[in-house]
Amino acid sequence: MSTQQAHPTLLIPGPIEFDDAVLQSMSHYSESHVSAPFVAVFSETLSMLRKLFQSADPSSQPLVISGSGTLGWDLVAANLAEPGDEVLVLHTGYFADSFADCFETYGVKPTQLKAKIGERPQLDEIEKALKEKKYKLITVTHVDTSTGVLSELKKLSELVHRVSPETLVVVDGVCSVGCEEIEFDSWGLDAVITASQKAIGCPAGLSISYYSGRAIETFKARKTPPGSYFASFKNWLPIMQNYEAKKPSYFATPSPQLIHALHTSLTQILSVPLSERFAKHKATSQKTKKAVADLGLKQLAPNPADQANGMTAIYLPEGVKAAELLPNLVKKGVIFAGGLHKEIATTYVRVGHMGVSVMDEGRGDVEKAIEALGTGLKEAGYEKA
Amino acid sequence: MSTQQAHPTLLIPGPIEFDDAVLQSMSHYSESHVSAPFVAVFSETLSMLRKLFQSADPSSQPLVISGSGTLGWDLVAANLAEPGDEVLVLHTGYFADSFADCFETYGVKPTQLKAKIGERPQLDEIEKALKEKKYKLITVTHVDTSTGVLSELKKLSELVHRVSPETLVVVDGVCSVGCEEIEFDSWGLDAVITASQKAIGCPAGLSISYYSGRAIETFKARKTPPGSYFASFKNWLPIMQNYEAKKPSYFATPSPQLIHALHTSLTQILSVPLSERFAKHKATSQKTKKAVADLGLKQLAPNPADQANGMTAIYLPEGVKAAELLPNLVKKGVIFAGGLHKEIATTYVRVGHMGVSVMDEGRGDVEKAIEALGTGLKEAGYEKA
Repeated sequence: MSTQQAHPTLLIPGPIEFDDAVLQSMSHYSESHVSAPFVAVFSETLSMLRKLFQSADPSSQPLVISGSGTLGWDLVAANLAEPGDEVLVLHTGYFADSFADCFETYGVKPTQLKAKIGERPQLDEIEKALKEKKYKLITVTHVDTSTGVLSELKKLSELVHRVSPETLVVVDGVCSVGCEEIEFDSWGLDAVITASQKAIGCPAGLSISYYSGRAIETFKARKTPPGSYFASFKNWLPIMQNYEAKKPSYFATPSPQLIHALHTSLTQILSVPLSERFAKHKATSQKTKKAVADLGLKQLAPNPADQANGMTAIYLPEGVKAAELLPNLVKKGVIFAGGLHKEIATTYVRVGHMGVSVMDEGRGDVEKAIEALGTGLKEAGYEKA
Repeated sequence: MSTQQAHPTLLIPGPIEFDDAVLQSMSHYSESHVSAPFVAVFSETLSMLRKLFQSADPSSQPLVISGSGTLGWDLVAANLAEPGDEVLVLHTGYFADSFADCFETYGVKPTQLKAKIGERPQLDEIEKALKEKKYKLITVTHVDTSTGVLSELKKLSELVHRVSPETLVVVDGVCSVGCEEIEFDSWGLDAVITASQKAIGCPAGLSISYYSGRAIETFKARKTPPGSYFASFKNWLPIMQNYEAKKPSYFATPSPQLIHALHTSLTQILSVPLSERFAKHKATSQKTKKAVADLGLKQLAPNPADQANGMTAIYLPEGVKAAELLPNLVKKGVIFAGGLHKEIATTYVRVGHMGVSVMDEGRGDVEKAIEALGTGLKEAGYEKA
């Protein structure tokens, strides 16, 4: 049984529910950020991230920095591109707009390739775009938390390597790392940025990212200095390399408590084969999506191949208001999220199914969510046509 | 009695020892970052920061962002100065060099006014510098964690307002907020940046900063956009204003656990008059410094008026090596820090006396540190001349 105080089950697409052991690690007694015991924990954490990304190439580089997922955009825009560089941003919702804003802040020129809401840019359009201009990098939101649209990375990366081999492949994996398959090395990815509080299952406060040797070389070959201080690879690369080699090092004070919690959650994740973890997320997602369809509801992403495995974005039936449904669901013990895509925010809700809520079936979180959604809609006067 | 696992007492100048209730708040069950209960906690936290800074001016603005103290430099350099602006950086150790680096990253031109190690630039030198050039802002490290040098803010701010009234007064308070007196409004300060893990007594992971209405107006009057995305006031000001007004708002996901811990620690801090808190830090500092003198040792800062109240930087006697002394102190149950100022790093050690180690006298932390230092030096063959 959980040692946590009773609370409604948090099933928004992040932050997710956290395991007791992870939360207990957050209370770790105070340690020096340069002490041998803490440095060892940080080192193991970085090594475990390599496994989570299914990466064995020693030239690749994990980074773990105090900050939110948003900081990952600065890490990419300030280090992997230079002022004046052109970048191609694949748009599947809210987050591509923000990533594009971030590039502009650093003088980088984003071109957005937009899809209709609920869809994603198709490979032939991307190929056409890549042939029109030379792009320093291409970004893709693996799962757009605002729409629940899943992008396909493997074929995308193959395309980029074939058509524009010098273009770096950058993945916004904030809502995918830990619940969607990612084979960093074999898919030829160059950067994946993410955060701690979604499928990785550690409280918010850590920007987690992973770079290929090629991305690091691109950084080292810059003609201009990085555009950020706090997000500068120049400041962070030696620190991360030292920590992983168990040498104390200082640029900015890390959060020992958050690193302990991440260590605990990665240990749990890697205690079962990753393939099993991804399969379980897929199965739970399908169950949720079937229940949504059985209720006569539609998802934002109509095409099954475009649907995320860690969350579902559901259009509300006519006459049902999110502002009334969501508080009623909280009374039933489950917290869903409202819409986030500004053009249609009030017309849909989102439910997350990631991490312990999926892996620890004894919790019954997802069943509870499905049942509450059905009852809640009924109480809102909705009946399946 | 503490509920924490037995561990050596952490007496480095940050992270410090944390109170049990603060660490328990770190384990708070998962909450949505836009839920009413969490938004209320964030709102109260921001209001309490106003009190900590002894500020009642409603045009002033607190910011709390996931990140480390270092992020505060980016907040200042990317928002309060513009490319080409001249800024004056008062140098009392390691941290001014880094702040200057940060300014350069954003195209801002720092001029450093350096003092000898253990001293600080004098008011007449600062006056001369301010008259030579027009500076957009001046920065001062309130307590330089590398040297234990305390700067005097009130007279400095008076001087700046008299000689160069348009220059913003920016304080690096990473090692001072919570243990050194700061009257933000009445001293006419424009920005104080700090972090959670020192005298504020909350685990690392939060960049905390405070700005005057004048600083915010300076930001709003920029001719160029801010140079950072993650550290942009444009992105954060509406979020902080909404949170404080108890309205949910989203730019980047905050860390509910860290905000709960900060809320707990600020509640504890404000439960006694701030004057009493500062007096207690001063008394404990004097006791520590007297013990150091009684041992025949010298501090980096020879002048009592330049000595920090939350830490002491102590020159080692000849023949005693930090690399041998520090591990021996750990065996005696106390963790001191080594030197950080690169020119003299191996010649001194640092001890912190902040937060619960000062306020909760029942812990006996500082007495234990003083005793261990004496015994440790003796065992290293040192005898007072």
